[in-house]
Amino acid sequence: MANEYLTLERLNIHQVTLMQCDFRESIECLARHGVAGTTLWLDKLDETNLDDAVSIVNDNGVRVDALCPGGLLTATKPAAFTAAIDLNRKRLDQAAALGARSLVIITGGLSDGDKDIQTARVRALTGMRQLVGYARNVNVKLALEPLHPMVCGFRSVISTITDAVEFLEELDAGDITGLAIDSYALWWEPRLHEQLLKVAPRVLHFHASDWLRETEDLRLDRGMPGDGIIDNRRIREHMEQGGFTGPVEVEIFSRKDWWRRPCDEVVQTIVERMEVYL
Amino acid sequence: MANEYLTLERLNIHQVTLMQCDFRESIECLARHGVAGTTLWLDKLDETNLDDAVSIVNDNGVRVDALCPGGLLTATKPAAFTAAIDLNRKRLDQAAALGARSLVIITGGLSDGDKDIQTARVRALTGMRQLVGYARNVNVKLALEPLHPMVCGFRSVISTITDAVEFLEELDAGDITGLAIDSYALWWEPRLHEQLLKVAPRVLHFHASDWLRETEDLRLDRGMPGDGIIDNRRIREHMEQGGFTGPVEVEIFSRKDWWRRPCDEVVQTIVERMEVYL
Repeated sequence: MANEYLTLERLNIHQVTLMQCDFRESIECLARHGVAGTTLWLDKLDETNLDDAVSIVNDNGVRVDALCPGGLLTATKPAAFTAAIDLNRKRLDQAAALGARSLVIITGGLSDGDKDIQTARVRALTGMRQLVGYARNVNVKLALEPLHPMVCGFRSVISTITDAVEFLEELDAGDITGLAIDSYALWWEPRLHEQLLKVAPRVLHFHASDWLRETEDLRLDRGMPGDGIIDNRRIREHMEQGGFTGPVEVEIFSRKDWWRRPCDEVVQTIVERMEVYL
Repeated sequence: MANEYLTLERLNIHQVTLMQCDFRESIECLARHGVAGTTLWLDKLDETNLDDAVSIVNDNGVRVDALCPGGLLTATKPAAFTAAIDLNRKRLDQAAALGARSLVIITGGLSDGDKDIQTARVRALTGMRQLVGYARNVNVKLALEPLHPMVCGFRSVISTITDAVEFLEELDAGDITGLAIDSYALWWEPRLHEQLLKVAPRVLHFHASDWLRETEDLRLDRGMPGDGIIDNRRIREHMEQGGFTGPVEVEIFSRKDWWRRPCDEVVQTIVERMEVYL
């Protein structure tokens, strides 16, 4: 598999990459360019109703690989924690209705005033334990995604592959859990490639974008593959050598650039770039 | 040592925390508040001449613990690499003249167009090998500082304690090298405390600031200890349990807040905060 060119069949463009579009426009744009898959952004799903969403993706023949982001299970207040569990169950139902393989899980960060990462991690683990049975029932995987340490404070107390793997081992539910690997979050790890080889069989989703060397924002200044310093092709190759066969998913948060361009230009650029950079 | 309150004798305020002052004003302000130590910021040192700098710190009785930042040894072009080595030798001479224990070393990031972290790391190691003998001659330690992964692209290809320790082990010059531990760079590591216990005897400098939960900048939005989510007191205690006895150095880059306030207010705030948060 390694070194093979990426095909449109295997390409996925995250709906969030087309933030400038509404739900329907984004799916129609992907279909227009022959992009086979997408990962739905939950804010956009909430702007439509579930039946309409199912019709739109089916009518356009676009495959839904995952819903993103679920999780956010680190609230210190019991009521907020319970609400998060309920919301994740709803997300799992939505994922099942849309035929998605996974709900992407980010643990959540530290609540206001909280300074204890270890205990936040325990809460996230407790939350995941409460979701495992439900996920099995609806046959949707929980794909844990470590995020970049710079968003540890408000998005994810799990920042590295090592920590994500340990978390999943403690959870001990390998049949219904796996990893989402985002190159933007992990590219800086010096032993990345050995680690990817090792964990590749557990990887359900590969999120790709680029790190602009002079990036200006902690979340919303991601680059188009080829414009920055991440070697996404090499990262894919290493995972494939380890057994990864899932979709390659382009996920670009770009408030000042790509979110301001016409969606057809964005998708066309990704399709052009994929032969060299993905 | 652990759990002891911090004293003014052991407190160090980095000169960069007082970016609003010139060289002389910053040192006089520290002396006025009884702060014993500082780490000089090299841009500020370059704004004065070395003899004047030596006089200013001596006349004010301020201890210079280190100069910061040296290193930046990852240039891909040979001429730039050689220039970096020469500059570091000059920095070591300056450190010796100022009675500083260390030159703080950051490896440097990726040069423009470079996507190969491993090779950049090898160049940094080569550079360090060329500095070890010179550092021994002038009796100034090379204090390697891992930086936050969010500045891997342009400041440091060494991002974690583990990677810094491995780097120093390959360098094999423990008599003249050590670590600078910056809580802002490392607070997100889930096994931070065990790691700090282990590496504490190699730690020469502890840089402290706070991570604002909703931070807005990748480098210049650091918080005053107590205003964010880093437990600096606990980090200090763990290092001290492991044998660290060095200075506690407050290093706040804050373009929109602390750099705009009068320097006396900044220093007084740090002195007030240290009993609870450092």
